[in-house]
Amino acid sequence: MRGASRLRDSIGIRSFLNSAVDLSRTISESMKVYPGDPAPSLTRISSIEKQGLNLTRIIIGSHTGTHIDAPLHFLPTGKGADRVDFRLYCGEAMVLDFSHKKLGSAIGSQDLEAVSDRIRANDIVLFYTGSSKSKADQKRFSYLAPSAAKWILEKHAKCVGTDSLSVEKFGSRTFETHKLLLSNGVGIIEGLNSSLKQLVGTRVFLITMPLKVEDCDGAPSRVVAMPLARSR
Amino acid sequence: MRGASRLRDSIGIRSFLNSAVDLSRTISESMKVYPGDPAPSLTRISSIEKQGLNLTRIIIGSHTGTHIDAPLHFLPTGKGADRVDFRLYCGEAMVLDFSHKKLGSAIGSQDLEAVSDRIRANDIVLFYTGSSKSKADQKRFSYLAPSAAKWILEKHAKCVGTDSLSVEKFGSRTFETHKLLLSNGVGIIEGLNSSLKQLVGTRVFLITMPLKVEDCDGAPSRVVAMPLARSR
Repeated sequence: MRGASRLRDSIGIRSFLNSAVDLSRTISESMKVYPGDPAPSLTRISSIEKQGLNLTRIIIGSHTGTHIDAPLHFLPTGKGADRVDFRLYCGEAMVLDFSHKKLGSAIGSQDLEAVSDRIRANDIVLFYTGSSKSKADQKRFSYLAPSAAKWILEKHAKCVGTDSLSVEKFGSRTFETHKLLLSNGVGIIEGLNSSLKQLVGTRVFLITMPLKVEDCDGAPSRVVAMPLARSR
Repeated sequence: MRGASRLRDSIGIRSFLNSAVDLSRTISESMKVYPGDPAPSLTRISSIEKQGLNLTRIIIGSHTGTHIDAPLHFLPTGKGADRVDFRLYCGEAMVLDFSHKKLGSAIGSQDLEAVSDRIRANDIVLFYTGSSKSKADQKRFSYLAPSAAKWILEKHAKCVGTDSLSVEKFGSRTFETHKLLLSNGVGIIEGLNSSLKQLVGTRVFLITMPLKVEDCDGAPSRVVAMPLARSR
């Protein structure tokens, strides 16, 4: 009853945040990025020694590290990261474990049907694939087959998240999973970190805060999760 | 009793988020930045028309738009944005109105003494200066005098935030306000947007999520505020 009971105490959300697990990857020059994405670059352009203060120029891709995919990623008239409601990426979430599957596997509707009773309408469904722990995860990561995307739509889940760098099979040219989800208003969070592992099998409250970047197809985001009571 | 009562309903924090006011500036190439900071650049490096999907290279400064100052901004051994606890920038906040002061004014301890009874230990103190509404706000913005920083320390507030682009007087070479705050563990949020105006005189719950950038002196952030009950 930890999360839920804390919500009811006098300082409510503050205590709730104290239980947060940070699901965000650290942005660095050595981080893994999806092949073809810009290499992150952090350049100190002012230093305490020389100018009295540190300042940094940050170069990142819109889909670098932990990020959201805005509808504009695949839909020509879709909303950019500045216009999509951040609350689409916030809310109650179920963390599913598919790390028993070999990296690079499809997660399909039959996999989801087996855990069907744990998913509710308006949920965020988080997929722990284990690829965040793999050194090879730029290309070999488990992904959502189009059948899984259709299942998500049928269940009226509002958002999906994964510790893989993409929800789509690596090398796809049709991007069917992305298009099914985005064109139906489902949020996509990619590149969660491996701390997701410690939450598998539980319900959490997810807070995802994407940078508000104008007309942008995606946005680097800070994501945290707070445990919810098991009974809920 | 809006915020507080909502916290106690069955879906708690979700309803609470529904009342959120977004205090984040939109990141764009035309946004105002502090003189000397890198000009933001958003370049589409892949498009739906040509490659089947939109991707963007983002160039921003660590102190562009709405952002936090990590201790490493001024302290050689201070924590970077990846190691500072995001909760320092989250919590109950009081929104003070100093927009009656001419832009470019100092806010000093005497100004704060006048509203002393509204500030509690562990508070975040938010300063609405009106500079976010000014076209000239890159240089002419109201700021915290060192006496205000000392007052914040004496009150044991944990964090300050402002809609100005800096808490420091423009052109300062000594950075006394920053150093007083950062060396004493007080968080700094700068560049909030002008929606802060609609919250003046109220208590809010602030959620600030900085990008987790390795060893970085600051981090662009998404910031939202939710109204709290007036009686609290």
